[in-house]
Amino acid sequence: MNKKVTVLGSGSWGTALSLVLADNGHQVSLWSHREALSEQINNNRENTQYLPDVKLPDNIAPTSDLAMAVNQSEMILFVVPTKAIRDVCQQVKPYIQEEQLIIHASKGIEPGSNKRISEMMAEELGDSIGQNIAVLSGPSHAEEVGKRLPTTVTVSSLNKAQSVMSQDLFMNDRFRVYTNEDLVGVEIGGALKNIIALGAGISDGLGYGDNAKAALITRGLAEMARLGKRLNANPLTFAGLTGVGDLIVTCTSQHSRNYRAGNMLGQGYVLDDVLEQMGMVVEGVRTTEAVYQMARKHQVDMPITSGLYDLIVNERPPKDVVDDLMNRGKTDELEHLT
Amino acid sequence: MNKKVTVLGSGSWGTALSLVLADNGHQVSLWSHREALSEQINNNRENTQYLPDVKLPDNIAPTSDLAMAVNQSEMILFVVPTKAIRDVCQQVKPYIQEEQLIIHASKGIEPGSNKRISEMMAEELGDSIGQNIAVLSGPSHAEEVGKRLPTTVTVSSLNKAQSVMSQDLFMNDRFRVYTNEDLVGVEIGGALKNIIALGAGISDGLGYGDNAKAALITRGLAEMARLGKRLNANPLTFAGLTGVGDLIVTCTSQHSRNYRAGNMLGQGYVLDDVLEQMGMVVEGVRTTEAVYQMARKHQVDMPITSGLYDLIVNERPPKDVVDDLMNRGKTDELEHLT
Repeated sequence: MNKKVTVLGSGSWGTALSLVLADNGHQVSLWSHREALSEQINNNRENTQYLPDVKLPDNIAPTSDLAMAVNQSEMILFVVPTKAIRDVCQQVKPYIQEEQLIIHASKGIEPGSNKRISEMMAEELGDSIGQNIAVLSGPSHAEEVGKRLPTTVTVSSLNKAQSVMSQDLFMNDRFRVYTNEDLVGVEIGGALKNIIALGAGISDGLGYGDNAKAALITRGLAEMARLGKRLNANPLTFAGLTGVGDLIVTCTSQHSRNYRAGNMLGQGYVLDDVLEQMGMVVEGVRTTEAVYQMARKHQVDMPITSGLYDLIVNERPPKDVVDDLMNRGKTDELEHLT
Repeated sequence: MNKKVTVLGSGSWGTALSLVLADNGHQVSLWSHREALSEQINNNRENTQYLPDVKLPDNIAPTSDLAMAVNQSEMILFVVPTKAIRDVCQQVKPYIQEEQLIIHASKGIEPGSNKRISEMMAEELGDSIGQNIAVLSGPSHAEEVGKRLPTTVTVSSLNKAQSVMSQDLFMNDRFRVYTNEDLVGVEIGGALKNIIALGAGISDGLGYGDNAKAALITRGLAEMARLGKRLNANPLTFAGLTGVGDLIVTCTSQHSRNYRAGNMLGQGYVLDDVLEQMGMVVEGVRTTEAVYQMARKHQVDMPITSGLYDLIVNERPPKDVVDDLMNRGKTDELEHLT
């Protein structure tokens, strides 16, 4: 143990994962592209802006110097928004060495290209590195990890050895790490759950109750699995931590921006007002448009995603969207899954 | 449409399902073994005790006369507690005719024999009827069905035609019914979710947060699927309405007796006090003991069920049980499932 490791991104999730690594005895370089943020974290020994009330131990070194952060590091963890992935890859590429373990903990699909995060990274970093990238994902509010409450996540990579190395780096008695060989399923689950969170928020905003929300989450899961299967993921992955688990945490928590945005839509607010009031990107809105295109291209039936697309793009009223979903033809639960 | 149908059991769920059938234009005999309850429902046109504030339409006829309830009925729906199934079967057997569609909407495993509900019914009613029994299950608080809020359920039978007939009887624009050919998976999901609800309650009672609860539900689902697979169920059924869906509704709702009992255990109350305070059977406690035996017999790894068994039978402290679960050896997420 006791390795030098690097975390790229000093948001709430990057900071929480640094804490896990530091608890395991590693020397952590916690990088931000904003010098002021790194200095502030260093001076306070706390990320007051993104993970308040969590004291950071001395083996976390905040820095905005990318070369220094990455130099002689055994593992580089990317925890930046989907839209910053390519840029950070380009910045870090000159310093990366082949033997370094590369992991990401971001969730999203690139609009336009419809690429997964590890695909974008492979394009930027080259195929020999790309084949070994691992992803870490699962049901995890950063604030709870910061409080060292019990949490479970999954790691996956095309290269099984990299998954096991990632598991070894992160696992401890409060942070349990499972491996899963299905990289495509793990990445897709993390991205698509934001669509369903939007839908769950709408259902609650309409006052439709627990039965309706459970139905939406479950049938949302079924359409995620259908798309996943078409893209060669294992449908069972969606019943795991990065599917069901992450959906539960996201769809039943006021912490989720996507859930809150959906809730306001369900109450009758129009999309522009919701986005303005949120004051930041609502990932589920962007992902809905990307996945709607993917479903059309691959001819996969995704009624919930289509309904939300109709609501977002064509301003169809939320109540009509839900009523349509209830009035579809009779189907079998496992249709197109078995 | 417009058939005569029978509902055996006038609890909250039986009454709510009668309402669905009545809304679809059927003539419903709603039977209770307690004459006073039937009279009260009939006089008030409301089941004030079990489903208050829901007006019952005229095509629901409450009765305690079993022969009259079943006579010339095209469908008989059993909605009684697991422990009353055999007795009600014996009572009704003389009046049943071969062409009647038999459905049940009960959830449980018989302690001792470890039989599913449809297996118990087949033993009592005979194999030729037993082969055609359908089950109706899914995420459904009766109160919400009573308010005609959107709800989805699944029906399953060894005989596909019976599933489709059941779907036709119940489906409407507020109550969506899916078919699923996996009878074993549908029945096991409904029974085992009460164990996981107990565990989710304990986690919340310990103050362990949303990450821990999502982990418990997801890993609980994985062990349900492992046992199901061993008993020839389809693991994907557990990702559906009668698995994930029902788990979500049960584990995130104060309505669930199992969840509430677990919550008290997590807060440090001892089991006897909890059971006394609940004042009624906590199905999850009985099911935990039955499933623990099943897991041993079939050599299926079920760490959550085993931990809860230890807590219930050997009075192991809840915190130790959860800590044990976090400190197990490293595993793969889909182990023994694929």
